Amino acid sequence: MLTNRQIRLQSRPKGLCAPGDFQLTESPLPELQEGQALAKVKYLSMDPTMRVWMAVDSYLPAVAIGDVMRSGGLAEVIESRNALFKKGDKIVGLTGLQEYVLIEPQSKYPFQKVPSIPFVSDTLFLGALGMTGLTAYFGMTEIAKPQKGETLVVSAAAGATGSVAGQIGKIFGCRVVGIAGTDEKCKWLTDELGFDAAVNYKHPDWKEKLAAATPNGVDIDFENVGGEVMDVVLNRMNLHGRVALCGLISGYTNEAAGPTNLGLIIVKRLKVEGFLILDYGARFTEAAMELGKWKMMGKLKDRQTIVEGLEKAPEAINMLFTGGNTGKLLVKV
Amino acid sequence: MLTNRQIRLQSRPKGLCAPGDFQLTESPLPELQEGQALAKVKYLSMDPTMRVWMAVDSYLPAVAIGDVMRSGGLAEVIESRNALFKKGDKIVGLTGLQEYVLIEPQSKYPFQKVPSIPFVSDTLFLGALGMTGLTAYFGMTEIAKPQKGETLVVSAAAGATGSVAGQIGKIFGCRVVGIAGTDEKCKWLTDELGFDAAVNYKHPDWKEKLAAATPNGVDIDFENVGGEVMDVVLNRMNLHGRVALCGLISGYTNEAAGPTNLGLIIVKRLKVEGFLILDYGARFTEAAMELGKWKMMGKLKDRQTIVEGLEKAPEAINMLFTGGNTGKLLVKV
Repeated sequence: MLTNRQIRLQSRPKGLCAPGDFQLTESPLPELQEGQALAKVKYLSMDPTMRVWMAVDSYLPAVAIGDVMRSGGLAEVIESRNALFKKGDKIVGLTGLQEYVLIEPQSKYPFQKVPSIPFVSDTLFLGALGMTGLTAYFGMTEIAKPQKGETLVVSAAAGATGSVAGQIGKIFGCRVVGIAGTDEKCKWLTDELGFDAAVNYKHPDWKEKLAAATPNGVDIDFENVGGEVMDVVLNRMNLHGRVALCGLISGYTNEAAGPTNLGLIIVKRLKVEGFLILDYGARFTEAAMELGKWKMMGKLKDRQTIVEGLEKAPEAINMLFTGGNTGKLLVKV
Repeated sequence: MLTNRQIRLQSRPKGLCAPGDFQLTESPLPELQEGQALAKVKYLSMDPTMRVWMAVDSYLPAVAIGDVMRSGGLAEVIESRNALFKKGDKIVGLTGLQEYVLIEPQSKYPFQKVPSIPFVSDTLFLGALGMTGLTAYFGMTEIAKPQKGETLVVSAAAGATGSVAGQIGKIFGCRVVGIAGTDEKCKWLTDELGFDAAVNYKHPDWKEKLAAATPNGVDIDFENVGGEVMDVVLNRMNLHGRVALCGLISGYTNEAAGPTNLGLIIVKRLKVEGFLILDYGARFTEAAMELGKWKMMGKLKDRQTIVEGLEKAPEAINMLFTGGNTGKLLVKV
């Protein structure tokens, strides 16, 4: 009989996740019922939205205290009593922070099989071709609607979503400027991903550098951060600019500090629009194929930061808020 | 030779306007040059945006220290060397806080002649048919785009703009709920203006009352206030709701305190759009005629709060932030 190791939410974190907020439990896996399948989790997707799930009801209910922490993941089917899944199938979906995931015959968020494509690694379906890439895709094409020649600024630009959003901006002919927290990340954005400029917000003169990098102002803010970073970007916005509001991660681990200059939304007649990937379920395949095409054409590059060990997942989540990852952050189980 | 009394900005207010922030000066009026006209100011329009003009460059430059304070007003031409204006003409425009206004032949914001319409008082062109009414009109028709059966919430609903916005919501078939700061204002909104409900935000249980008044949630927030009031309204918004961001007056006289729950823009996929009346100059006549039609049909009611005396203007401005006015606030010169 197999034993499942699971990470359960023990208490709602204050600020960053602390060791006592999670508990690693072990329990035997039950025998499969008709219609169920069992998969071994290979990689877990670490996403800022997990910090929201720990805290409050939002677009999904908060994870209950004592439950296995919700997360995305990539798993391989090892046993199946469900005709849809066979042994060896790779799947992505809400695995949760655990070693094995039991696939139920009916689920609100069903697992998706990972297609086998030459030169495309399975884990790309957790990143550039997965939820974070799809978030960037719909945020850019449905909310930001970039026009050739416009200036796009992306915050948390070296993250999994930001890095894809910026590259989509380049594909649409924008001047793209990234904001990130280390010089190395900035160099990656300009030298490898083709951003026109990147600014390290930890440098004291970064506001001046952002201004210099956006000589024609900013038409689109693909906003992942909020707080002071968003304040600075709003100051650079052109009249009638658009803000695609994807995340506000600066406020997920502490009391939200800003943006404080919301009056600029009026003065500059901005349109600020929030969006969630959940609304585009019917178009995931279409979007993944478009992203895959760009990937194969060399227009969409990606990087992964991989942390080893299920038990490291809580610490890995913190890296999303302290700038520890470049590109997609994964935990290898 | 006539003497002009003028209120000049002496220092940029901290918080509410203090007596030392303005100076009343007297100076003789110059002789008219060819192309100029002179008008006697009858009424001054008191608007929250004046507090912004005192403080910072925004959509208009900040008023310079020592300059006559900018404001709208209604004036009567008393002398003219300009063929467009003749003695006795009533005009509205940026008169400034003074007894007489010199009309220059060329101006970026030209004065408009007030049409003479039966049963319509001239001062209505400072209110429901003037800038505040037009702001409500374009905010509702171009930004909020109300649909029959939707629920609209208006903050500062008993103010000059809010009261018109709510009535437009009724004309478009919405359920309209106002937020105001006294029971008398709330009673005016429901009993005279036809709002479906009104909630006094100074009552401790106002959040519950707002919830009860919006049983189907809120589709449109016509937002004039910001801060905690907006926080509460955002909590009631439906998925894919719209916020027409007209003003954030709670932050004009003190450090902006919220809204703090901007994450709801993402969770609820809201669209928040700022707008300014300046963008609709070419359509002012069309809009004023539409508003005038509603006025004549009895669908658009208004009220004025009138303060007597030019020297009272700075105190009057404060009333906009302390809840001292119902409907349009005017200073009779």
